[in-house]
Amino acid sequence: MTSPILHSYFRSSTSYRLRIALNLKGVETEYRAHHLRFGEQRSEAYLKINPQGVVPSLELPGGEVLTQSLAIIEYLDETIPEPPLLPKDPLARARVRAMAQMIACDIHPINNLKVLNELRSRFGADDDAVAGWFRHWVAETFAPLETMLAGKTTPGAFCTGDTPGLADICLVAQVANNGRFGVDMEPYPTIRAIYDTCMALPAFERAAPANQPDAE
Amino acid sequence: MTSPILHSYFRSSTSYRLRIALNLKGVETEYRAHHLRFGEQRSEAYLKINPQGVVPSLELPGGEVLTQSLAIIEYLDETIPEPPLLPKDPLARARVRAMAQMIACDIHPINNLKVLNELRSRFGADDDAVAGWFRHWVAETFAPLETMLAGKTTPGAFCTGDTPGLADICLVAQVANNGRFGVDMEPYPTIRAIYDTCMALPAFERAAPANQPDAE
Repeated sequence: MTSPILHSYFRSSTSYRLRIALNLKGVETEYRAHHLRFGEQRSEAYLKINPQGVVPSLELPGGEVLTQSLAIIEYLDETIPEPPLLPKDPLARARVRAMAQMIACDIHPINNLKVLNELRSRFGADDDAVAGWFRHWVAETFAPLETMLAGKTTPGAFCTGDTPGLADICLVAQVANNGRFGVDMEPYPTIRAIYDTCMALPAFERAAPANQPDAE
Repeated sequence: MTSPILHSYFRSSTSYRLRIALNLKGVETEYRAHHLRFGEQRSEAYLKINPQGVVPSLELPGGEVLTQSLAIIEYLDETIPEPPLLPKDPLARARVRAMAQMIACDIHPINNLKVLNELRSRFGADDDAVAGWFRHWVAETFAPLETMLAGKTTPGAFCTGDTPGLADICLVAQVANNGRFGVDMEPYPTIRAIYDTCMALPAFERAAPANQPDAE
């Protein structure tokens, strides 16, 4: 059977999320790298696949193209039920999705490579200013996320329960990204513990940027 | 029966999304305004409800608090099935979620009030620079969104099909927000047509910023 094609960039944290989910679901893919710093995601050929010119995309064997990491992960969860990445209860699902979106909406987009580049070109931001910006948005959301996770009523080593899910996926990719901008992780012991638990699993470890074919 | 409490700000476009969804689902709420420009979302009392200090939140009659607009809307869709805000087919659901996330992840967070305020305080951005920033991120994503919507294979007046859903909700709130920063909507005829179709529906019209109790 033909494998889906994963359009990715090793360092992209949205690609990282999707790679973890694909590994957890046991989906083998053909890896296609698009180097963001060289603008390869804006090539004519790739814009035909994803008009937005961003990674990741997942090209299914039937030719359909899925975009946006969280939408693709929910699709995987709906079509390959085991292991589940969301709990069954609607209220618990809403909590997991909210934690995922705290990262996916309130941290990652504001700290994305293309946004940091605009800070440089529009406002003359230097490396220190860019790193300060990055750390500010992480702290704004990691502080309440730590509070929510430290006070969680469900036992288990992950964001919810004993198995990794959508929130853990987003958390791990963000923590990895933080390392590149000197984020102080000291104030977030629960987040660090969840990250360590996840990274001990092969599905997470194999998805890490350093382990991709296009890693530098 | 007690109504859920909607924590909102009239001009917040994530609150606007949730208000539309609540209206479409026929859920009555008790409206609590938090004035973002006065920092009311950071009050001690509200931080106990939502540690992130953002709107919207939905406080259920049982005391549970839901946060993050898209997570809350998916919860409403799972617990109140009619009218559906997502199609049934997983591939179609993924497409609708992707369009919603193009707006919710790739436009709105970067143009959020608190981000614009940081541009002013960190980089001395003036009104023109802030408006230019806002318009840049809208154009980056509205251009491919227009392409995707103009080429859609499903008939109907909305983003998908003949009934409004999650993507339309995000689209309408973003278009309304664009008006405040002078975004040229000329290049987006399909988006404009969907916006007009939606705004002719009472569920959308009643949710508009100008029609909220805290409107200025």
